[in-house]
Amino acid sequence: MNVFIQRPGRRDAQKDATRVRILEAARDHFERHGFEAANVRAIAADAGVAAGTVLLHFADKRDLLHAALFDDLAATAAEAVRDEEPGSLEQRLHRLGAAFFAYYARRPALSKTLLRDALFADPPWQARFTEQVAAVHGRVVELFNAARAQGEVADDADPALFGVAFFSFYYFALIAWAQGAHPSPIALLDRLVAQHLCGLRPAANVRRAR
Amino acid sequence: MNVFIQRPGRRDAQKDATRVRILEAARDHFERHGFEAANVRAIAADAGVAAGTVLLHFADKRDLLHAALFDDLAATAAEAVRDEEPGSLEQRLHRLGAAFFAYYARRPALSKTLLRDALFADPPWQARFTEQVAAVHGRVVELFNAARAQGEVADDADPALFGVAFFSFYYFALIAWAQGAHPSPIALLDRLVAQHLCGLRPAANVRRAR
Repeated sequence: MNVFIQRPGRRDAQKDATRVRILEAARDHFERHGFEAANVRAIAADAGVAAGTVLLHFADKRDLLHAALFDDLAATAAEAVRDEEPGSLEQRLHRLGAAFFAYYARRPALSKTLLRDALFADPPWQARFTEQVAAVHGRVVELFNAARAQGEVADDADPALFGVAFFSFYYFALIAWAQGAHPSPIALLDRLVAQHLCGLRPAANVRRAR
Repeated sequence: MNVFIQRPGRRDAQKDATRVRILEAARDHFERHGFEAANVRAIAADAGVAAGTVLLHFADKRDLLHAALFDDLAATAAEAVRDEEPGSLEQRLHRLGAAFFAYYARRPALSKTLLRDALFADPPWQARFTEQVAAVHGRVVELFNAARAQGEVADDADPALFGVAFFSFYYFALIAWAQGAHPSPIALLDRLVAQHLCGLRPAANVRRAR
């Protein structure tokens, strides 16, 4: 094996491990102290690295916040999207929403900062956020199409528009939760999805839940 | 007429006129320079008052921003809610949404700052924002009930939940517009409302638009 290929590989792995350790320390730090009070030096100390090492990996505190959150969200999305369990469209959409809400509930302070930031992020985070949203939207459309193939929803219903409606409900429930106005965002999401879906059933099934 | 009642009245009117002039200067200033670059001294100069006068009326730049925006939004809401023109539920909801989107389009920079701030405002602005949202939600429920009385929507449809769905679509369209992702938020709102409503029609009318 060529040592010139092997060596950078080992260095990359080490660099990745350092990055992961810094991000883990940053998440805990942001969650405990809030974004405003957090500082790079204390995060570096928690991660057992020099402050300069943190700044080799991340431009500043905000960059660190985005990296920590978007990594988590990407992992949550990948897991939620992988869902292979059978169920009705409503059950599958419930699981998709529940996976995200469970993440936010584990890291409430971090998530509220994220919500404010992600919705109005600047590049390159804006692009990464848009990409993640597109992936989840694509998954909602897939679930909708699978339900359509099963005769659960009508043939003439618009799947992409349904995906946008799902995101509208999801964001609304998330914002209401972040504002402290709603203790159970998933229950609200379920009710909104149910009311929306009642018009998209095949003619024989309409009026199930209003 | 008692001069002791008259005098403070005149002073109040003068104070109100000064407040209105400061807010008008602030709106133009925020719109032209953005919130970050705006400063109280320049706004005072535009309004033809001393910086100290501005600070008698408003705690700081952020307070000024909130006062300017919430006054405008309250006026927009009052006008939109006053709508007495007849029409289908979809037409009336379109007019309600269009009134707000027209305001945002007139003051895009200010509105984008508002959106970010209003969704996550601190007290007392949070309370004022919640109150305004509740008023518009109440109006949506009224329109829905009027449509129900006309047989446009089914008797067993949940009006309050429909109001939440309407707000979900409205916020989604607004956020998409603020991110530059959608040029016509009102067209998106109309399509989402139409898909949602198709399940809430009386049985004979379902499947109108999917």
